[in-house]
Amino acid sequence: MDTPWQHRFAQRTQRMSSSTIRELLKLIQQPDIISFSGGYPAPEVFPVEEFQNACNVVLKDHGATALQYGATEGFTPLREFIASRAAAQSDIQVNVNNILITSGSQQALDLLGKIFINPGDRILVEDPTYLGALQAWNAYGAEYITIPSDENGMITETLEAALRYGPKFIYVLPNFQNPTGTTLALERRKQLAELADRYGVPIVEDDPYGQLRFEGEHLPTVEVVDRSLHATDHGHYTGNVIYLSTFSKILAPGIRLAWVIAPPEVISKLVQAKQGADLHTSTFNQMVAYEIARQGILESHLEIIKSTYKERRNIMLDCLSEHMPKGVHWTKPKGGLFLWITLPEGIDTAALMNDAIKEKVAFVPGAAFFSNGGGANTMRLNFSFSPPDKINEGIARLGRLIHRVV
Amino acid sequence: MDTPWQHRFAQRTQRMSSSTIRELLKLIQQPDIISFSGGYPAPEVFPVEEFQNACNVVLKDHGATALQYGATEGFTPLREFIASRAAAQSDIQVNVNNILITSGSQQALDLLGKIFINPGDRILVEDPTYLGALQAWNAYGAEYITIPSDENGMITETLEAALRYGPKFIYVLPNFQNPTGTTLALERRKQLAELADRYGVPIVEDDPYGQLRFEGEHLPTVEVVDRSLHATDHGHYTGNVIYLSTFSKILAPGIRLAWVIAPPEVISKLVQAKQGADLHTSTFNQMVAYEIARQGILESHLEIIKSTYKERRNIMLDCLSEHMPKGVHWTKPKGGLFLWITLPEGIDTAALMNDAIKEKVAFVPGAAFFSNGGGANTMRLNFSFSPPDKINEGIARLGRLIHRVV
Repeated sequence: MDTPWQHRFAQRTQRMSSSTIRELLKLIQQPDIISFSGGYPAPEVFPVEEFQNACNVVLKDHGATALQYGATEGFTPLREFIASRAAAQSDIQVNVNNILITSGSQQALDLLGKIFINPGDRILVEDPTYLGALQAWNAYGAEYITIPSDENGMITETLEAALRYGPKFIYVLPNFQNPTGTTLALERRKQLAELADRYGVPIVEDDPYGQLRFEGEHLPTVEVVDRSLHATDHGHYTGNVIYLSTFSKILAPGIRLAWVIAPPEVISKLVQAKQGADLHTSTFNQMVAYEIARQGILESHLEIIKSTYKERRNIMLDCLSEHMPKGVHWTKPKGGLFLWITLPEGIDTAALMNDAIKEKVAFVPGAAFFSNGGGANTMRLNFSFSPPDKINEGIARLGRLIHRVV
Repeated sequence: MDTPWQHRFAQRTQRMSSSTIRELLKLIQQPDIISFSGGYPAPEVFPVEEFQNACNVVLKDHGATALQYGATEGFTPLREFIASRAAAQSDIQVNVNNILITSGSQQALDLLGKIFINPGDRILVEDPTYLGALQAWNAYGAEYITIPSDENGMITETLEAALRYGPKFIYVLPNFQNPTGTTLALERRKQLAELADRYGVPIVEDDPYGQLRFEGEHLPTVEVVDRSLHATDHGHYTGNVIYLSTFSKILAPGIRLAWVIAPPEVISKLVQAKQGADLHTSTFNQMVAYEIARQGILESHLEIIKSTYKERRNIMLDCLSEHMPKGVHWTKPKGGLFLWITLPEGIDTAALMNDAIKEKVAFVPGAAFFSNGGGANTMRLNFSFSPPDKINEGIARLGRLIHRVV
């Protein structure tokens, strides 16, 4: 007899479904589709030769270490590099005990869910927010309290009322947010850090794109703002913020390498959770990334990425102005990978996707980014992946499609 | 004010503690310690040059793909390779839809916990069993039913009574078990598969070491035995077994690469869980492993590993005979990485560890492998990691230590 699998799965599994984005990503493997859907970096600017060189150095000089098991916390020189880079960029004290290496930021989100979320716990999120975080935390039985956002990010004026519902933590993407591309204003960062501190509620700051600013002034992270509210204890971070960033957007996502900066008590629990989740992140990949970083390639490579993405964003904004009918609005991000389109009320972008596929253009319908429903008339566009001529052609196709329904 | 982190953590986090093994692994970084503790492969036989060559080929020919995001299911050519290798080795039909690539087998254990285990669900395990599985499943609130084992593995005669307690699944390591090194007898494999089928209870077969047999005849996996009880539907596996294996022991653990073979309904839920856990396993590492496999290096490399480990096992067995006092017993594994020592009742190997560290020799105290307690007088020794002269010296030190307490 066959095993009745569906009756064997756990309760949390009933809530799992395939992420809309991941299913859509499969579409870009069809060569004639112009995809604005995934959060893919531009493959043309991957530092392939630098990787080749780093792999050769690591295997030649440290082959036996690179191929062996490693510590759950991560490769110490890479953790030290991240700590000193964070300290240099923001004038704050971070040391190696504040750093955990994870297998992509998605793993950091999963581990945070594992150590913090009891079934029914409420997480305070922006509306809309990154759907990968929702997917990770749904598995732990999270519920969500949503905070509306505008062109300056989370509207922190509404935060205090929400904090009184007793959320487990606040989740925020302050820079070039996924999905909207907007950036949290400095005054709001201060208000967020102060309120979280007052109510003793941790902040999870997810910052994959902060280093990809094309214009305007760099804003201090919420973590840095929060530091000014806390004393540091012998260089140990004792603040309220758990900060996430990644090599996926500044180097390459295919090596699955990210990091968490947090107080040692939190790092220590994350390490225990990570032991059970995957023992440790690939030693080889960590050593290769460290070799690239050590050679000073990161900063120069960032300039190449930023100028490429800025050009593509500009082209996409120009094309939108040219091809979109009246009543369609979009954000104008100052960095990152995404912009966000709002169509007139009543239009369902999920339904529009079927026609879009026929027209060989893809986007992500916005509803999936709203944890408690809504947003059917929105969509996310990625501008980093497609080269200029594809952006031109893709937005023209999308414009024709939207003209038909508006 | 500082955040009261310990009051913020989830209920499951209270049950987390650092794995004894992982903490002990840190010891082998002290150069003068002879460590029999970790499950480390012999670093001397890592195929470093083959890795170097494969990295260069992959980056030169497919750099942009290798560094980009990939599908959650895994790199298709690698999944196809695993499917056809499994089919060739066991004369069974497995196709690409039965295969999921994971970030080490530890991740497969974690994802299985996530999709199957409700808090309080009972898992049927061997006593002793792999502590990494216990660590992964404790986080989901698992309870355990233990089945005693002897030199022929799980004593399946006691299985039927335990199955009537309604376990969620049965967890078994049939070949050169971790921690004992014993192998499940063929008759018991049949009994296990038949009983699991009759009660509709899935089997999780964890087989990292099955290909590392030094002597005696290869036994069919429980999965293969189970197939004979099930019809196959157009080449889809419809049986009752979820099979895990890994590149960690046949190639290198530092690349964190393993696989699951299971019915498509199970793979599909594991994929959804993996999306939330780490999106996908490193594209680059999968392509490098595939390149090595494609070049046919795996089989010849396996011969090198096996002859190395066989020599080390022989030396360790000889040294144990020479140095251990009467009343101490150990298993004689026909493959794998571990053997298992039982000291006279009343001796606590955890207490012995403090003296062992002073004597500069390390092992894993056995109690951690017993899910419901017991085993204080046992220990696990690894024979794959240390070269012959270290095994000689290490067992001599251990013998002196044990002579003092027996």
